[in-house]
Amino acid sequence: MNHLVETIIAPATPQGHSAIAVIRLSGPDAIDITDKIFKGKKLANADSHTIHYGWIVDGDKEIDEVMVSVFKAPKTFTTEDCTEISCHGSPRIVQAILSLAIVNGARTADHGEFTLRAFLNGRIDLSQAEAVSDLIQATSSKASEIALNQLKGKFSSSLKQLRQELIDFAALIELELDFSEEDVEFANRSRLRDLIHKIIAVIDPLLDSFRWGNSIKQGIPIAIIGAPNAGKSTLLNTILNEEKALVSDIAGTTRDFIEDTLIIDGIVFRFIDTAGIRETSDALESLGIERSLQKLREAEIVFYISDVHRPVSDTIDDFKELNLTSSQTGFVLLNKADTISPEIAAHKVSEITKITRQKPFLITAKDRSSLQNVFSQLNDYVNNSNQSEGTIISNSRHYEALQNTKMSLQRVLSGMDTNVSSDFLAMDIREALFHLGTITGQVTTDDLLESIFSKFCIGK
Amino acid sequence: MNHLVETIIAPATPQGHSAIAVIRLSGPDAIDITDKIFKGKKLANADSHTIHYGWIVDGDKEIDEVMVSVFKAPKTFTTEDCTEISCHGSPRIVQAILSLAIVNGARTADHGEFTLRAFLNGRIDLSQAEAVSDLIQATSSKASEIALNQLKGKFSSSLKQLRQELIDFAALIELELDFSEEDVEFANRSRLRDLIHKIIAVIDPLLDSFRWGNSIKQGIPIAIIGAPNAGKSTLLNTILNEEKALVSDIAGTTRDFIEDTLIIDGIVFRFIDTAGIRETSDALESLGIERSLQKLREAEIVFYISDVHRPVSDTIDDFKELNLTSSQTGFVLLNKADTISPEIAAHKVSEITKITRQKPFLITAKDRSSLQNVFSQLNDYVNNSNQSEGTIISNSRHYEALQNTKMSLQRVLSGMDTNVSSDFLAMDIREALFHLGTITGQVTTDDLLESIFSKFCIGK
Repeated sequence: MNHLVETIIAPATPQGHSAIAVIRLSGPDAIDITDKIFKGKKLANADSHTIHYGWIVDGDKEIDEVMVSVFKAPKTFTTEDCTEISCHGSPRIVQAILSLAIVNGARTADHGEFTLRAFLNGRIDLSQAEAVSDLIQATSSKASEIALNQLKGKFSSSLKQLRQELIDFAALIELELDFSEEDVEFANRSRLRDLIHKIIAVIDPLLDSFRWGNSIKQGIPIAIIGAPNAGKSTLLNTILNEEKALVSDIAGTTRDFIEDTLIIDGIVFRFIDTAGIRETSDALESLGIERSLQKLREAEIVFYISDVHRPVSDTIDDFKELNLTSSQTGFVLLNKADTISPEIAAHKVSEITKITRQKPFLITAKDRSSLQNVFSQLNDYVNNSNQSEGTIISNSRHYEALQNTKMSLQRVLSGMDTNVSSDFLAMDIREALFHLGTITGQVTTDDLLESIFSKFCIGK
Repeated sequence: MNHLVETIIAPATPQGHSAIAVIRLSGPDAIDITDKIFKGKKLANADSHTIHYGWIVDGDKEIDEVMVSVFKAPKTFTTEDCTEISCHGSPRIVQAILSLAIVNGARTADHGEFTLRAFLNGRIDLSQAEAVSDLIQATSSKASEIALNQLKGKFSSSLKQLRQELIDFAALIELELDFSEEDVEFANRSRLRDLIHKIIAVIDPLLDSFRWGNSIKQGIPIAIIGAPNAGKSTLLNTILNEEKALVSDIAGTTRDFIEDTLIIDGIVFRFIDTAGIRETSDALESLGIERSLQKLREAEIVFYISDVHRPVSDTIDDFKELNLTSSQTGFVLLNKADTISPEIAAHKVSEITKITRQKPFLITAKDRSSLQNVFSQLNDYVNNSNQSEGTIISNSRHYEALQNTKMSLQRVLSGMDTNVSSDFLAMDIREALFHLGTITGQVTTDDLLESIFSKFCIGK
């Protein structure tokens, strides 16, 4: 790892005018280089985890009044010597300090290179490194919770242990290959079978958690559909306009960034516009309808909105025609409830409940208070979906690796069933080990590291 | 100062997704409040200027993995107990930590409130506080240098000392008022006169430095003017397009932010578009021309560009018609120099030099290399302008206060010349003391503080 002898530098805070900006250095010369440009206590003599007042200077010329934090190896983010320079928050000053440090021997860090070093130096594994990035990008507290768990390494440590057991078996089977003419069995087939079942029993709930984990990360997709004038747009506006006001109180959650989303109790719901699905049967528009139907298919929850004055049978028929899949949840919303007598409404509700086996909601689309039951049902949905007590995976790379691991393991199992030779078993086990290893980074390729860390910000 | 018993909190870094974000607390409960939400070493027992690893927690719920810096009074930015929480750089996490700290007793800081506290607690004076803001906003290294000098308090300490001497005289004169019937003179008039001359001798170069200091802060305004097809736009593009490439290498110096500027050796030049001044004499357009002429008047430097093929007399006449003021510097640029024989060009240059007493530049507007002499002349201009070895003021509030001080002092002098009574002298001296005091903040009003600190960013 030749490049680890270099000392890297990057701003760690966003660009802009602010109270302070932080510049990070890491590497064998981090403290020496900082000492060269710092007028204050000699940092080489400072204790680790201490902060020092002084000036960044270029010879006699003062660049800025700063505080410098010193972190000495190995108890640092990268396990290397690190310094952090807190300067005044001006892009010009940050640039001047970066240039000065580079002249004095530092090199600009690549995207995610600090975290990459933490990984290469063995402080964190690959899934923990990815959690750092997920945490920064998390748009809801639930997504952040999943990333924090991953960051703590709970997920990867269990996988690492199982992988080690599998490696032990692989070694025995590889040994059999050396004695292939003698037809010996060093690896106890029944214990191998047990281990593989154990691994699959760990992998399966992780795979199952992905749909949920991914929804948490990306937002749970909700499609609002219904006939024209059923009140779709009014409903969407009532939900989102209220939300706009709410969201603007929360720094960073702007509507420009995440379109049409609503955060309820720390969960992001992503509303999908499906206007037009049922508005025409004109052949020319079928492409547009096709696209809307596609969006309906992607939704995890469907709000079907219907005018409460329509005949119950029409509402039921239209709802059924949506053909929701078993993994989708449909909410029937009967709109304009404020314009119908409570008795008739109650009757309609009970009729629909009989057929669809779920109670429709009486709402008034323009009145947010009438939506409270809908929101609380969404909450129940979230709580029920999140039954897994264990780890939730939200990273599609991990999902694919776990799927590949499972397929390889299943090939090992069926290979044993049909008594294939040890070399085929060994090959499938090696493949399983490979895929399992890519999750934690025990197996890596330059391409894999490149694709993971290039998504990081500079300075992370 | 009742509000100083409160503990304030604010993010100190810009909003955005980044490696880290820093949240600052200051006030008597800063360490207690941080301890309540921090799982790690008990910060109340930590040494000042140390950094601690741990988690921000809301009861059992982990919010983020963080580093907390502890600064114990009085050696801190505000002189109060302070903490800085370095969390992962996500607006959502920052918001969660802010909310949690507020629930635990902190209050959101107002704009500039940390610096205001540093001032109210006597660590820095008002002009130093203003320097913090100037430094953050500085767009060139020269502007930053002026702000740094001001931050170090050189400027204000000399004013403070002179003000103290004047206070001593004021006391003596006030004493005379008590004995007004006895016609005594406690304050030696000739020494008072000396002191006032000494103060004015300090104020005058400061006042003189303001035009320069303000140019440095805002950028030195350069107007490019000339007849249509003289090559104005080409020249502007050659200067600025090249610059665009240069600027894009410098983080934060985007063209969206500062329009049409060029930084040469750390000085910002601000190019002013005066196209149209001489293009028409149509009465209807006179308003537009008037506005262009206004811009010409605001320019400190004027690039007058003329086609080298035009008769020398025309170029000279047009240049003279610009009626530059004594504080303006005109550069005559003879364009299309690549299309004329060097002999003829040299002849024209010497003809023009004879009349205008300054050597015109032979340029080819589309060729940046032909502009080297112009740029080096700009540099000379800067170096000559910056003759003042001493302090440069760039803050218009200071400029006005110094002007008002000088006027009051001159009234004291003329009052003594005409033997006005002590009470009039005392009044004028009090006024001078007031204006002088507003610079360093020895005299403040709530309005003044409000107008200064409201321009600061939150967290500063």
